[in-house]
Amino acid sequence: MIDLYFAPTPNGWKISIMLEECGLPYTVRPVNIGAGEQFAPEFLKISPNNRIPAIVDHAPTDGGEPVSVFETGAILLYLAEKSGQFMPSDLRGRYSVMQWLMWQMGGLGPMLGQNGHFKLYAPEKLPYAIDRYERETARLYGVLDRRLGEADYVAGAEYTIADMAIFPWIMTHKRQEITLDDYPNIKRWYALCRARPALQAGLAVMKNAINRNPQADEKVRETLFGIKS
Amino acid sequence: MIDLYFAPTPNGWKISIMLEECGLPYTVRPVNIGAGEQFAPEFLKISPNNRIPAIVDHAPTDGGEPVSVFETGAILLYLAEKSGQFMPSDLRGRYSVMQWLMWQMGGLGPMLGQNGHFKLYAPEKLPYAIDRYERETARLYGVLDRRLGEADYVAGAEYTIADMAIFPWIMTHKRQEITLDDYPNIKRWYALCRARPALQAGLAVMKNAINRNPQADEKVRETLFGIKS
Repeated sequence: MIDLYFAPTPNGWKISIMLEECGLPYTVRPVNIGAGEQFAPEFLKISPNNRIPAIVDHAPTDGGEPVSVFETGAILLYLAEKSGQFMPSDLRGRYSVMQWLMWQMGGLGPMLGQNGHFKLYAPEKLPYAIDRYERETARLYGVLDRRLGEADYVAGAEYTIADMAIFPWIMTHKRQEITLDDYPNIKRWYALCRARPALQAGLAVMKNAINRNPQADEKVRETLFGIKS
Repeated sequence: MIDLYFAPTPNGWKISIMLEECGLPYTVRPVNIGAGEQFAPEFLKISPNNRIPAIVDHAPTDGGEPVSVFETGAILLYLAEKSGQFMPSDLRGRYSVMQWLMWQMGGLGPMLGQNGHFKLYAPEKLPYAIDRYERETARLYGVLDRRLGEADYVAGAEYTIADMAIFPWIMTHKRQEITLDDYPNIKRWYALCRARPALQAGLAVMKNAINRNPQADEKVRETLFGIKS
């Protein structure tokens, strides 16, 4: 059994989607990030970076003590290896997934995160910062759109963990005032992923939880960003 | 033979260090990022995100056509697999490396990049943005310092690709006005890595190239950030 330490955010959904897709049994352990539960010492042992999601696998393949994994990119690779799914086994297929997974981890996720922060949540509107991240976000959408003009899915002909990593961040497009009409290849791929029942089940985890959009709450912003109002 | 498309930046050094450490033969292909060479169509085929570094392996292990890999995290894993070095083979060891590599890719790199931008390169001094990234940078240094209080190297007892990914970003500490005296475990680890001849050889690649610190040049900032002065 796998424990999933979770909150309903784009990074959390990457893992709830993968767990639903690959069919490994799991238990959701909600972490109320708005209340600062990610800073609890017990959670720090599992996730030394104080971030959700994280997993603890109580039945690892080596038969030893439970294994904990933090960082979504590492968790997705762990679950792909454990389940033998959503990651090709040949060299070229594997590194195609790996490079687009890394692109999500190092570019799309962090930069869309900054875009959302300065556009939606920062208490001051800073035109320079808003413009910087809007341009970088548009550039990244352009990279993804070009890629999805070459292949059905991000890493090639098959749906993989690279799609699962990218999809929840593209879900932010409406809130970030981006229209997929500007990116026809992304629009096609988005509908294709969105139609998957397992992906929908992953998105439904904790759907009605209180801290669904914690950044909208003032007190929560203080906990998350150290912003005092 | 491996072609390394390279410029002397923290992300570039990750790969020149690994190539020196693992001993695979390689040829440096300089990319003048200040002059915008990363936007050339031929380079886009290798690196669809228009970023250095990237590699082309002309003798992949599957014996087929050359393989190109972009994103430093994916390149480090590719070279570790090809050389059979700097990545443990057991489950726990591998995922310890993987999670800290992902932490560098998704957190340390992007956030220190933003910190450097707002602190050093942005044409306007924006106290809110400077404060935001200074606090996040200090938090990340704290996470790394705690981790290096538990183990000699980032992923455990051995020097791995996780150390190679993190070291070049910690090299920015002086320029970003951070003192390692505040982080004694990082300071110990930094000296341990710094003493490695192969790491020094990796840092020496293109040491005297013109575009060593391209962001300091006004025209180059326009190319890199779209900032018109």
